[in-house]
Amino acid sequence: MPRKQEDRDIGIALLGLGNVGAGVVKLLEDNAAAIRDRLGARIVVRAIAVRAPGKKKRLVEVDPALLTTDINATIDRDDVDVVCELIGGETEARAAVLRAIERGKHVVTANKALLAAHGEEIFAAAEARGVDVYYEAAVCGGVPIIRALREGLASDRVEWLLGIVNGTSNYILTEMADKGRAFGDVLKEAQDKGYAEADPTLDVSGGDAAHKLAILLMLAFGTTVDAAAIPREGIDTLDPIDFEYAKRFGYVIKPVVYGHEHAGGVEARVHPAMVPDRWMLADVAGARNALYVHSYALGPSMYYGAGAGMMPTAMAVVSDVIEIARNIQAQSGGARPARRHRAIARKPLLDPGDVRSRYYLRFTVADKPGVLGRLTTVLGERDVSIRQVVQHGSGGADGGGPVHVVVLTHEARERDVRAALATISSLPAVTSPARLIRVFE
Amino acid sequence: MPRKQEDRDIGIALLGLGNVGAGVVKLLEDNAAAIRDRLGARIVVRAIAVRAPGKKKRLVEVDPALLTTDINATIDRDDVDVVCELIGGETEARAAVLRAIERGKHVVTANKALLAAHGEEIFAAAEARGVDVYYEAAVCGGVPIIRALREGLASDRVEWLLGIVNGTSNYILTEMADKGRAFGDVLKEAQDKGYAEADPTLDVSGGDAAHKLAILLMLAFGTTVDAAAIPREGIDTLDPIDFEYAKRFGYVIKPVVYGHEHAGGVEARVHPAMVPDRWMLADVAGARNALYVHSYALGPSMYYGAGAGMMPTAMAVVSDVIEIARNIQAQSGGARPARRHRAIARKPLLDPGDVRSRYYLRFTVADKPGVLGRLTTVLGERDVSIRQVVQHGSGGADGGGPVHVVVLTHEARERDVRAALATISSLPAVTSPARLIRVFE
Repeated sequence: MPRKQEDRDIGIALLGLGNVGAGVVKLLEDNAAAIRDRLGARIVVRAIAVRAPGKKKRLVEVDPALLTTDINATIDRDDVDVVCELIGGETEARAAVLRAIERGKHVVTANKALLAAHGEEIFAAAEARGVDVYYEAAVCGGVPIIRALREGLASDRVEWLLGIVNGTSNYILTEMADKGRAFGDVLKEAQDKGYAEADPTLDVSGGDAAHKLAILLMLAFGTTVDAAAIPREGIDTLDPIDFEYAKRFGYVIKPVVYGHEHAGGVEARVHPAMVPDRWMLADVAGARNALYVHSYALGPSMYYGAGAGMMPTAMAVVSDVIEIARNIQAQSGGARPARRHRAIARKPLLDPGDVRSRYYLRFTVADKPGVLGRLTTVLGERDVSIRQVVQHGSGGADGGGPVHVVVLTHEARERDVRAALATISSLPAVTSPARLIRVFE
Repeated sequence: MPRKQEDRDIGIALLGLGNVGAGVVKLLEDNAAAIRDRLGARIVVRAIAVRAPGKKKRLVEVDPALLTTDINATIDRDDVDVVCELIGGETEARAAVLRAIERGKHVVTANKALLAAHGEEIFAAAEARGVDVYYEAAVCGGVPIIRALREGLASDRVEWLLGIVNGTSNYILTEMADKGRAFGDVLKEAQDKGYAEADPTLDVSGGDAAHKLAILLMLAFGTTVDAAAIPREGIDTLDPIDFEYAKRFGYVIKPVVYGHEHAGGVEARVHPAMVPDRWMLADVAGARNALYVHSYALGPSMYYGAGAGMMPTAMAVVSDVIEIARNIQAQSGGARPARRHRAIARKPLLDPGDVRSRYYLRFTVADKPGVLGRLTTVLGERDVSIRQVVQHGSGGADGGGPVHVVVLTHEARERDVRAALATISSLPAVTSPARLIRVFE
């Protein structure tokens, strides 16, 4: 049996001192005694690389002597065991992480965009060099979902997963559902309060969620996918009226990621969806995240908590540092897999047109006799089987004005649904494009 | 950096071939290819110790040559790296686990009673001998809650936790709540169907939950407690009428464990409790388990899934074996902590009388003028402040018959509440003992 090496201090370097970096500094201070007790050693910040060391306003006070603009020198320090990459973005972060690995430093990163785009390269470099790369904070913030998939479910076979992994989107949809507010209105408030980025595109378009889904697919199914190729729809086209109808039918609209391994490839998508209001996922409100996993042996399991925020994200980063410190103490740094599977294949993404799901379809039509029959006939001709259809609104005082026809379908192939919608949109009675939201049951 | 040793087969011995043991055999077969892919090695069952090797009816088919009655010889085999203790009970299991450790074998156990009673001894022996002890299956079955606390939240400080950790109790209370059935009726059906043990005492009395809570307290707060000293109330005294009132007030009755670290010691208790129906814990139905954790940095997080059952529990056992196999491959077997804290203290349990919580109190009283006033006066004199009081029932055609007075209190000290109940029970108008259920908000 190997002997533990002396419990020496573990030196870390922070690249970046924004929200998460400040949280790491604060958590290391606040929980210093507990961490030392658990680890038998201290975690000591040796240097912090920032863009502007002279900047006055920071979220935490740090010794100015720790601050530097020289990322490379920070990484290269002899007294640094672990480099925490908290810069964000892809180019600079990639260079820093690869340099750290090359210098034999272990790495902790919270950067989902980086891992989604360059994960293969980074994990391969780390394996070759014998260093650890941990990334718990990259998905669902502080919720230990990476560990759950990699270790907790190591013996199981994940069949599918359904998650709420973008806090900003979930916050916006929760507000829209609870208060009947419009998308733009909630977004603006969230930006004013600092919850949403000045440029919220990555959040509301599903881009950030796609990055996270790519990491989840790697862990769950042992596949790398091109995150940019994951079909996605943003939440910015949702209307308050759809939240009302969702409620009436017993659903809640949530911004979800979905992954499912089939014999022919991996089904992966990012979009708003209706989930039954009795599901736990429906209760995941505000900026909270959750991942629901369905696996062969365990069946359903769920993991829930803060998906973002200074302290929750910092918690995941520092827990990763502790894990690496334990590896160092066990003289097994770099010897444990960063991923769940050894062999990572590039499995094909299924063509979205071939994928089957349930749909909520809302048509805006002139309130004339025969329109409903025409709609349902077109759907039927395309093998889209209807579970429920409801017409809302009277069409105005004299009739003939626009009304909503809401259709809930059974499971149908997306290609067929799209074809039906194309035909329907060309009908004279249809006054605006159909609204489509996928439904889970 | 250490080099990985050759990816040789990992030999395991199973002690016991009941429900969980059979699940392990089945899972190793069903997921053999996936496990080999993830580990680069096979996990091979070398021997299975059973009481009656000739027994005809087993849950899985196994090679008869694997079966033996000789536990010690099974443990001692040279080709066994990991001993999976699936016997249950304390005496024989303790001897087997200590022998395995002494022989330098790593151990996986699902035995909460064993760890609650002899955890200190076992962990100390394993540390001294340099072997791993993993026990994910001991709490919440397949839900990776041990890992979440030990690694995922390694940098955090757990403030309190609230869990549903006994599937049988939760199944019974779910049936009582959903169908208005009586306790004994549901229990009998559960026994007939094999969900509940022939002797259900450990489940319905809270004893099993107390064992699991003791393990959670060790992980969360770094304390060992005497599980037998944890205050507990069973679910066997609950009346259907309390489920009706709970519903009316917006609560669901759940069998919970609660742990909270205070400056003066650890508050720990096992009892049925009312939780708000909007909480996720209220949705944990049937035999499912969940743990809700509130920690300093992460805030609330929750972990949910199958808390028992052949395949879910086996999944946790085999994931533990994979973890040990990875340690062996990293040549760091026995070098990582089995617990979250290095220094485990024996912190005092708070006196239940000193603990504050909210209460639901149901009094059965004669419907006479002044009774309600008398009750509320006694409560007030004991500093038990009332949030809501409702009188139900008309007292029969002529009045004067028994009615229910239901009181929801603000936070109050248990000693004060008990004293008030003692006084109230001596009032002539009170016809039967008060019913007390704790309330979370």
